[in-house]
Amino acid sequence: MTISMTRYFTVLVLFLTCAAFAQDVPSVPVAAAAPAQKTAPIELPRQVILIIGDGMDEQQITIARNYLKGAAGQLLLDQMPLRAAVQVQTVEDSVKGRPVYVADSANTSSAMATGIITSIGRISTSAGDDRDLTTITELATAAGLRAGIVTTASVTDATPAAFATHISMRLCENADKMVDITFKGISLGGCEDDLKANGGKGSIAEQLAASSLDVILGGGREHFTTITEGDTVSGEDLARRNGFTVVTNVKQLTATAPGQKLLGLFAPSTLPVRLAGEGGRKAESPERSWLNHLHPFLGSVTLPAPMTCVPNPAFGDIPTLRQMTETALSHLSHDNEKGFFLMVESASIDKQSHERKPCGSIGELEQLEEALDAALVFAESHPNTLIMVTADHSQAAQLVPGESLFSAYPIPIATPGKLARIITLEGGNMSVNYATNDFMMEEHTGAAVPLYSNSEGLERIPPFLQQGQIFTITRDYLGL
Amino acid sequence: MTISMTRYFTVLVLFLTCAAFAQDVPSVPVAAAAPAQKTAPIELPRQVILIIGDGMDEQQITIARNYLKGAAGQLLLDQMPLRAAVQVQTVEDSVKGRPVYVADSANTSSAMATGIITSIGRISTSAGDDRDLTTITELATAAGLRAGIVTTASVTDATPAAFATHISMRLCENADKMVDITFKGISLGGCEDDLKANGGKGSIAEQLAASSLDVILGGGREHFTTITEGDTVSGEDLARRNGFTVVTNVKQLTATAPGQKLLGLFAPSTLPVRLAGEGGRKAESPERSWLNHLHPFLGSVTLPAPMTCVPNPAFGDIPTLRQMTETALSHLSHDNEKGFFLMVESASIDKQSHERKPCGSIGELEQLEEALDAALVFAESHPNTLIMVTADHSQAAQLVPGESLFSAYPIPIATPGKLARIITLEGGNMSVNYATNDFMMEEHTGAAVPLYSNSEGLERIPPFLQQGQIFTITRDYLGL
Repeated sequence: MTISMTRYFTVLVLFLTCAAFAQDVPSVPVAAAAPAQKTAPIELPRQVILIIGDGMDEQQITIARNYLKGAAGQLLLDQMPLRAAVQVQTVEDSVKGRPVYVADSANTSSAMATGIITSIGRISTSAGDDRDLTTITELATAAGLRAGIVTTASVTDATPAAFATHISMRLCENADKMVDITFKGISLGGCEDDLKANGGKGSIAEQLAASSLDVILGGGREHFTTITEGDTVSGEDLARRNGFTVVTNVKQLTATAPGQKLLGLFAPSTLPVRLAGEGGRKAESPERSWLNHLHPFLGSVTLPAPMTCVPNPAFGDIPTLRQMTETALSHLSHDNEKGFFLMVESASIDKQSHERKPCGSIGELEQLEEALDAALVFAESHPNTLIMVTADHSQAAQLVPGESLFSAYPIPIATPGKLARIITLEGGNMSVNYATNDFMMEEHTGAAVPLYSNSEGLERIPPFLQQGQIFTITRDYLGL
Repeated sequence: MTISMTRYFTVLVLFLTCAAFAQDVPSVPVAAAAPAQKTAPIELPRQVILIIGDGMDEQQITIARNYLKGAAGQLLLDQMPLRAAVQVQTVEDSVKGRPVYVADSANTSSAMATGIITSIGRISTSAGDDRDLTTITELATAAGLRAGIVTTASVTDATPAAFATHISMRLCENADKMVDITFKGISLGGCEDDLKANGGKGSIAEQLAASSLDVILGGGREHFTTITEGDTVSGEDLARRNGFTVVTNVKQLTATAPGQKLLGLFAPSTLPVRLAGEGGRKAESPERSWLNHLHPFLGSVTLPAPMTCVPNPAFGDIPTLRQMTETALSHLSHDNEKGFFLMVESASIDKQSHERKPCGSIGELEQLEEALDAALVFAESHPNTLIMVTADHSQAAQLVPGESLFSAYPIPIATPGKLARIITLEGGNMSVNYATNDFMMEEHTGAAVPLYSNSEGLERIPPFLQQGQIFTITRDYLGL
């Protein structure tokens, strides 16, 4: 299908969101720098568990390591036997698709899910000509393997969506959000050509409900309670029609026996995060005296008071990422002779960084570590399991000096952005800076991101790879 | 020796500089997560080439890759067979040495040179009790191997200095800068206890001139023209007394036959960089309209005009890092049955980032790539050569979106810091943000840094290591 919008622009709704619109340009295929491939015949069942820390760049990892394990400590990530770097790629949604140097979660997830580089805001559709791009979960289920997605975001959010749906713009999450989407009166576009009435597949929630996935767990229930297009039933009803058992709390989640398709929706939108700044604090602007407003060398600047990270009461009895991962692994592996693909996303490393909340990002990275632990435990009893952990793009947070390098100078020195000073468990003072813009939300950044794997990745994953190669490595490992 | 200062503080001179002062605390030894060691008997000669990109974090590497090779291209670094991450560690110069979360080049270079974690500003002396820490070049030359340092900074700058000298504060670069160092009237401390008159070893330049190094190449001639302490000769004269041939230009450098100690000083201080912003431009503040000064949602903000990177005329006939590296390798390997250790630093990735000059950092990273190429060529004909490339700490630059994620909102959105928009060779527009402070120089940041090696590093270097392990890996490889 094609879409009618002709202008490339980017947008926001609540958390980061971007959309890009088409001209007549084919997508850029991934130029795979061929990694050495093992040549032994494929033993079944085989599994790939792809864990994505959204926005989990080297700064975020170091910040979390310092807080959770200490400056000389090691995360579970650090103990993985393989570490690589992933080149993040994005193209303009216009003729010849020139490179764009900073990505969003939609186009990066599409690259990992399909192997094809696309433009910002797209969900497994090609830049320019808006073709549906076959995803790894579609390949897997067509071959008789199972597939699942688990996330701390809404299951309709860009990262999970790109693994199983196709739409021109990530904001089209349910049937009520397909045409003329606005936020506070601002037009953010739409997905008219993706309407079923126009021959499309419908919204992301409708596509997920109708999908071949075996397990879908996360937030976003609000997108499944709306009535689906051209029908009288909700997204949840549509999912039930398609064989899904729908669960909405931990008790139901853990009580559901394997052997049925499982849709778990545990919050209206993004799941609450585990850690928060005390009193709900986040990074704040240093306070400048009136003299300092006249000239930056004059007067004084008061930095935000140090703060602790505390449990977020809103987390409540929301399932942890570990619980969702364990349930997914149990369902996907039950009585399964062929194997499966599972994507697990820790979404709010990114979302909390957009909001300048370092404690939230730290707690969310801890959740990723626990999900990784669950995956490693699973792999102990399931030998042909490739576990990869990576990020989709880099993010705004920077670990900066607690005391300026230049503090001997008798002038006030402070970030022009927002600063959080976190009291660490080892008694240090860790300063996290956010200064990519002065808007209510920070920007992504463009650095390459890390990729880790268990020993199954050795000899399969080169030390430097393009993001689309995550698709080809997965496909080849599963023999698809 | 001990030093008399009792307060920890940090300082600046021109380029980044830091000093830390002692109490009675032992340094923290490196807890080496044991990598698998090869057990074969050591064949001689063996060589280690350690290439350090100062401040070369993942953001800097991605920015340079995008400019030099394109968004889908590969640097030579990316083609190395091993990639790891290095945990950067720093401690307070006080009781029990609590962790400090952002490092400087002095303490990180000391960790790589000696295996011991120390405090900011220190040159291979221990935090708190100011003991001299044995460096890898001292171990090498004592065992009959050769050793050299090559840098685009002054050879007395923190990174090269820590590989061969011991002093309590990095600013003590020559005999005239040992007591009451001031910069524009601001007291930056001193190294009284390191004076020869007080039983110390003297300034960094004096220690280098008297050192067992075989090759010293870089900038910093101004530190060798001052008269040495308690003597009537200059640092250059002292070096000649110690067997060094002193050269000051490319012609002399390339004309000097191997078989003699070589001191090359090619500029008064830091060597000029290769690339610069057109018209000397660097990152600039977005221009805000008067309405925008009243409220950030009002008025307009004009971003700095895009710019190109151009050759820096000041570079002139300064030797390239490749030329210096090739000469060093030739001298160190000539008629040498035992082997050598060589440290090569590309210093101005960091220095140009402090100054918010992304073109300078890019050109300097290109120089590092060329030095790496020279090392790889050398290794082809010298089989027992371990090449490692790493950074000492992360830096301020961030690759940010050319168009804000939130540009659909009808309000001006821009960085609160300084922005450079670089026109890339592939026709893109790459935006680099600097916003760690509002001072004349940016800060370092705290993220872990990458480490690359050639195939000799496989099975010797784990995927995650502490910075001090670079010392132990080198020592073990050389059989010291």
